Amino acid sequence: QIAKEVAKLLEMKAQLGADEGKHKFVLKTPKGTRDYSPKQMAIRERVFNAIISCFKRHGAEVIDTPVFELKETLTGKYGEDSKLIYDLKDQGGELLSLRYDLTVPFARYLAMNKITNIKRYHIAKVYRRDNPATTRGRYREFYQCDFDIAGQFDPMIPDAECLKIVHEILSDLQLGDFLIKVNDRRILDGMFAVCGVPDPKFRSICSSVDKLDKMAWEEVRSEMVAEKELSPEAADRIGDYVRLQGGLELIEQLLQDPKLSQNKQAKEGLGDMKLLFEYLTLFGITGKIRFDLSLARGLDYYTGVIYEAVLLQQERQPGEEPLGVGSVAGGGRYDGLVGMFDPKGRRVPCVGVSIGIERIFSILEQRLEASEEKIRTTETQVLVASAQKKLLEERLKLVSELWDAGIKAEVLYKKNPKLLNQLQYCEDSGIPLVAIVGEQELKDGVVKLRVVATREEVNVSRESLVEEIRIRTSQP
Amino acid sequence: QIAKEVAKLLEMKAQLGADEGKHKFVLKTPKGTRDYSPKQMAIRERVFNAIISCFKRHGAEVIDTPVFELKETLTGKYGEDSKLIYDLKDQGGELLSLRYDLTVPFARYLAMNKITNIKRYHIAKVYRRDNPATTRGRYREFYQCDFDIAGQFDPMIPDAECLKIVHEILSDLQLGDFLIKVNDRRILDGMFAVCGVPDPKFRSICSSVDKLDKMAWEEVRSEMVAEKELSPEAADRIGDYVRLQGGLELIEQLLQDPKLSQNKQAKEGLGDMKLLFEYLTLFGITGKIRFDLSLARGLDYYTGVIYEAVLLQQERQPGEEPLGVGSVAGGGRYDGLVGMFDPKGRRVPCVGVSIGIERIFSILEQRLEASEEKIRTTETQVLVASAQKKLLEERLKLVSELWDAGIKAEVLYKKNPKLLNQLQYCEDSGIPLVAIVGEQELKDGVVKLRVVATREEVNVSRESLVEEIRIRTSQP
Repeated sequence: QIAKEVAKLLEMKAQLGADEGKHKFVLKTPKGTRDYSPKQMAIRERVFNAIISCFKRHGAEVIDTPVFELKETLTGKYGEDSKLIYDLKDQGGELLSLRYDLTVPFARYLAMNKITNIKRYHIAKVYRRDNPATTRGRYREFYQCDFDIAGQFDPMIPDAECLKIVHEILSDLQLGDFLIKVNDRRILDGMFAVCGVPDPKFRSICSSVDKLDKMAWEEVRSEMVAEKELSPEAADRIGDYVRLQGGLELIEQLLQDPKLSQNKQAKEGLGDMKLLFEYLTLFGITGKIRFDLSLARGLDYYTGVIYEAVLLQQERQPGEEPLGVGSVAGGGRYDGLVGMFDPKGRRVPCVGVSIGIERIFSILEQRLEASEEKIRTTETQVLVASAQKKLLEERLKLVSELWDAGIKAEVLYKKNPKLLNQLQYCEDSGIPLVAIVGEQELKDGVVKLRVVATREEVNVSRESLVEEIRIRTSQP
Repeated sequence: QIAKEVAKLLEMKAQLGADEGKHKFVLKTPKGTRDYSPKQMAIRERVFNAIISCFKRHGAEVIDTPVFELKETLTGKYGEDSKLIYDLKDQGGELLSLRYDLTVPFARYLAMNKITNIKRYHIAKVYRRDNPATTRGRYREFYQCDFDIAGQFDPMIPDAECLKIVHEILSDLQLGDFLIKVNDRRILDGMFAVCGVPDPKFRSICSSVDKLDKMAWEEVRSEMVAEKELSPEAADRIGDYVRLQGGLELIEQLLQDPKLSQNKQAKEGLGDMKLLFEYLTLFGITGKIRFDLSLARGLDYYTGVIYEAVLLQQERQPGEEPLGVGSVAGGGRYDGLVGMFDPKGRRVPCVGVSIGIERIFSILEQRLEASEEKIRTTETQVLVASAQKKLLEERLKLVSELWDAGIKAEVLYKKNPKLLNQLQYCEDSGIPLVAIVGEQELKDGVVKLRVVATREEVNVSRESLVEEIRIRTSQP
């Protein structure tokens, strides 16, 4: 507490200090956020394109919602994580909070518009006042790419498609080996029941289990017993289950488990898990999917199958920094969330997946840094240039003609730029062609087209210039 | 004041009332915001595509910045409009505000990264606690599409390109007739000086002039005289000037104006305005550009040329609602803003334009509503269907093959859907093809491909199915 006060005073002092100086601005982005440079944006767009193509391949529509919601819309949806929500200042009017994920706004959207049937994606930033670890791709402002299927359907078909989507995206992005862990909230709850966890402790014990990917079992066990006052015997029984992972054979084995098979919830969950694995076998993707009883996921709203994709530690590329690998996608079934918003409590079953792309960016960014690949940040096809002075008007006229014909063209904003500087600009920004106007070319009604890479120069008549540029810059 | 208190109490009461009921959620988006449905997103993407193509055609890179900035970053940049900034609640740590525009974050980005030379675009949402008039496309959360050129260049070349861009985008979107008004802060300041406005009143009188697009001169004059204590004589002299609008001939006339021509600032502004019109003539766009001495623009940071594009009232399409037409783009030169952030006060001259697309959306949305055009919200090429029961596994296998081959395909999430329902789904969502599997087809190693529009059916071998779908759904 004292340390916190001191830190706050120091922060105030620093701010005052800055205020006293001539330039009072602290030049930074808020804690846990970042700008994207043009180069980073180029990587980001590659990743988005891969993800959006996949969502569209599966027939999804797209929606968007505001960055903030009424505060009460978010209340009671996130369990222990609710403390991480950003609130807006009360400036009169409604109390607002920044969205924490895209799932709750989606459920609010469905209830508000009485939609009972939709397959949609939504790509947008969400906000969490977490402890950022920006080097490992953990931010307070970050993108989520969500795909969800809402509607009353036959069991596990949409659920299987969500896993297929994660598999397609992670394969497509070539991030290295990955694993998708799968579990079911009903199996977890059934397991807690047969292990002797009292009903009111289910969610809290579930939160502890959720930490097993970061903490050893012994630590999690002591949290359960010491902090959450679970009996050591119950904890040990849980310990036996959460160590189990496997495929169809494990599901069969648990369906025979004398205790679990007597529990209605667990039995339902295991039955659906079996069906899910049958569909995943048809999709040919069981090789990267593992039924894992330690997977819990923190959020309160899940009701059925849950899953999480992790990248597996791999050999590093030469020059690449070791990266904390971790979860890159997660999701599950939440059949009760829409009903929480509907005035008549009508349920709309939903299942979905969220791709967390910040870690994917971090990996691809580092990979690009380490490689020799030079990434272009513009798409300019041609620079309009001149070798002689006093040709600004002619350059402007030509570049304007090219723009009007749909050619991506630039011109230097100088009255009399040197030819060398114009060529250097092309080298630096990767522009492949230069269209040079000069006194002689103007007289002859031609433009000299220069290929930057080969230095080859040809005279092209003004009328065929657009076509010539198109041919020379069309992708093979 | 009392009315405000009563409203607040009523609001509190309404909230309490809602809390008492079984379902405590107010089902709405925050005031002045909205969701985008799939159909609205389809329109939005069309508009974005037109704008982004234009920005790329002019060789712009793209950046992104966080949705919030340190509060002090925004302080002192927006004049009277600062009261409209959304602040975040102090939850410990930094004091934050939602961005009000994309220009100030851009200037902060340049100073922070010591960038002196860039041409970039940025498309993102900005936030203003304004009185929303959502029917006329005015929101509290809205998109801006900004294009800016930063760097030390020869006069008016980048400025002219910004106007060319506005012209290209508004022409491309076919929104009807438009006009781009142009003025210069230096001409305004010079005009205020020669009219006898005392120096400290410049910004405040400028704000009054800015209202001339919504208020009659008489009202603006009385605001100047009564509220802002300007002498009636000075106000009348301003009134004579701000009624002037025209082209090159007006610039020439004012360069001869005995008073204005003696003012250094006005003379510089008029000289540059002349140069600007020469470049615009080369671009062939002066027909839609008007030098207008009443254009002021509210923001504090402009230092040179300023502009604003308005849509002109036009005959309505049948069935179209009359829309309040107004500003759809604006911008100008702000040579001092980056220096406000730079620790050494280094200046980076900038000029830019912001396209305000919410009004453009409103217009296009209404036009689409009125027309018969059916807009597709997915890109699905084929639905995998079956006529008989017990073929779910076969449907899943086939759809998975198609996804893996990059075909956009869907399947209904039912074990035994009726063929009629499957065909109806295609009709409703505009899917052009159906791939039907049945016992006989499976034996023969074929798939029945049905064209939804013509009901034509052909048997296609399983191996050539992907190619056949590609050919039949490729854009001509």
